[in-house]
Amino acid sequence: MVGVDLGGTKILTVLAGMEGDVLARVKVPTGAELGQEHVIDKIVETVQAALLEAGAPAGSVKAVGMGVPGPVDADNGFIHFAPNLGWRDVPLGEIMRRRLDLPVYMDNDANLAALGEHRYGAGRGAADMVYITVSTGVGGGLILGGRVYRGAGGGAGEIGHVTVAEDGPVCRCGNRGCLEAVASGTAMARRAAALVDEGRGAGILAAAGGDKNKISARAVARAARAGDAAALAILRDAGRYLGIAVAGLVNLLNPAAVVLGGGVMESAGLFWEPMLERVQRRSLPSSLEAVRIVRAALGGESGAMGAVALAIERASPVKA
Amino acid sequence: MVGVDLGGTKILTVLAGMEGDVLARVKVPTGAELGQEHVIDKIVETVQAALLEAGAPAGSVKAVGMGVPGPVDADNGFIHFAPNLGWRDVPLGEIMRRRLDLPVYMDNDANLAALGEHRYGAGRGAADMVYITVSTGVGGGLILGGRVYRGAGGGAGEIGHVTVAEDGPVCRCGNRGCLEAVASGTAMARRAAALVDEGRGAGILAAAGGDKNKISARAVARAARAGDAAALAILRDAGRYLGIAVAGLVNLLNPAAVVLGGGVMESAGLFWEPMLERVQRRSLPSSLEAVRIVRAALGGESGAMGAVALAIERASPVKA
Repeated sequence: MVGVDLGGTKILTVLAGMEGDVLARVKVPTGAELGQEHVIDKIVETVQAALLEAGAPAGSVKAVGMGVPGPVDADNGFIHFAPNLGWRDVPLGEIMRRRLDLPVYMDNDANLAALGEHRYGAGRGAADMVYITVSTGVGGGLILGGRVYRGAGGGAGEIGHVTVAEDGPVCRCGNRGCLEAVASGTAMARRAAALVDEGRGAGILAAAGGDKNKISARAVARAARAGDAAALAILRDAGRYLGIAVAGLVNLLNPAAVVLGGGVMESAGLFWEPMLERVQRRSLPSSLEAVRIVRAALGGESGAMGAVALAIERASPVKA
Repeated sequence: MVGVDLGGTKILTVLAGMEGDVLARVKVPTGAELGQEHVIDKIVETVQAALLEAGAPAGSVKAVGMGVPGPVDADNGFIHFAPNLGWRDVPLGEIMRRRLDLPVYMDNDANLAALGEHRYGAGRGAADMVYITVSTGVGGGLILGGRVYRGAGGGAGEIGHVTVAEDGPVCRCGNRGCLEAVASGTAMARRAAALVDEGRGAGILAAAGGDKNKISARAVARAARAGDAAALAILRDAGRYLGIAVAGLVNLLNPAAVVLGGGVMESAGLFWEPMLERVQRRSLPSSLEAVRIVRAALGGESGAMGAVALAIERASPVKA
């Protein structure tokens, strides 16, 4: 089976066997700025390159799973709006089926990252699992009863827009105090930049090479590892807010696992402890006992592996 | 089918046909203070009385559904701890099966109230539905994909213990700022009593008959309806917090319906508008569009009707 993770900056395509064993992986820049046709050509090329890399004959793939960055109609693969690609109303499912001459199954990237971690990663065996990704934004996906939970309009899992700080900073969604507005990489960088603007945060500025425009969550993490107090406070607060959200999910959904991934989660590990401390303090004991809270295991490949799992599920019992 | 809602203060037993048509209803005080044997005798009496009232022969009932106030093992009806009854480790399912000589299916009261509203009340037709009950506490139940969602340990739906006010008042669960700590009837009454202690809240005190010990959410609601500003502020704040929690659920679960019930919801309707205003402001537009936010339709009978639905589901295709 083929799994494609179509992102705003890169396309990752994986060829895998029925057990999720990776036979080949191909990663190329998306080149979204070059237009929709270019991106679609690139996707097709990655699929062909993956087959070539594995030495697999063209007919050996029976279905393609694909994750897209934004809401998508899981039934037909119609994309209404994908801001990271600059796309509106693109019938991507239909286009890809025609170009690849294969069944193509689609879902949004967060749902597929959740599915990937559930089938092949840190969430294996957990019938009910929450996946949270912390990167420039905060996203998530829910696996309930062993399946992706999509809700009434396919929009479930928007963990980044749960309020955790009533009077907190304004979020890009327009509200105040969303998890994303206080715990995303963007939020951490913004808070760090504000500190620097106030003439504080020298350690963070140094970690950003002295360039105010290069202040990022990564720079904050670097400064924190070097012991900078302001950077540590930023990570601690972000971790605490994440912990409040996770505790709410534990109490509400009583999941067997909460899996945390995403670039910021990987680079800013110093917010793990404050997060966990809040989860332990704010979760109901019986639900806390039932849950394991773990880091994602598949790194940048959760989404592509979820796309593989989707293709396997939807195309079974046919084998690739 | 027979549905029993075993509560801390009353037992409500309903006899209903396969379409949920109520043939008889019997309500008696639980008398929990008289001991477990007494309560079990009372349950048996209500079932017999309901049959008598409907003129139904004893053999016409094929199964009994029962809701209990606290966590219960849905498989065998074992109650670990029901504080409202003062019970610990009671194999109620087994006891009731022996006493009634019928299959008895059990779940906690909030899950069954959710199921009742889903099958026969305000949540009909909503595959994914959130039920919230606001009374002395705040509880809830989740219907996902048309079924009660229980989570890994049967503890899902604890909406009352989602944090909505990071530094809010201490909750009986030990945390701060849980929804229950700011929006339950108990929370409203406590805030009103504190106002009166400070020499303010004269309108609320008057609504409580001048007796500080009689300050309740109901008294606050009465004072608010009479135009008392302090009472209105208490309801408004409680409604806003409830709205923050509902918006979080809308964004997270993308449900087709959110159904709000419970005694305080019925008596303190003045917090509906501030609640709705927050939901509208804090929900993602696509998920807001997909959801209807409505009051429970079955009043005090949601739980008993959910117990009927449980008995029908579990015992089908046998008819009562």
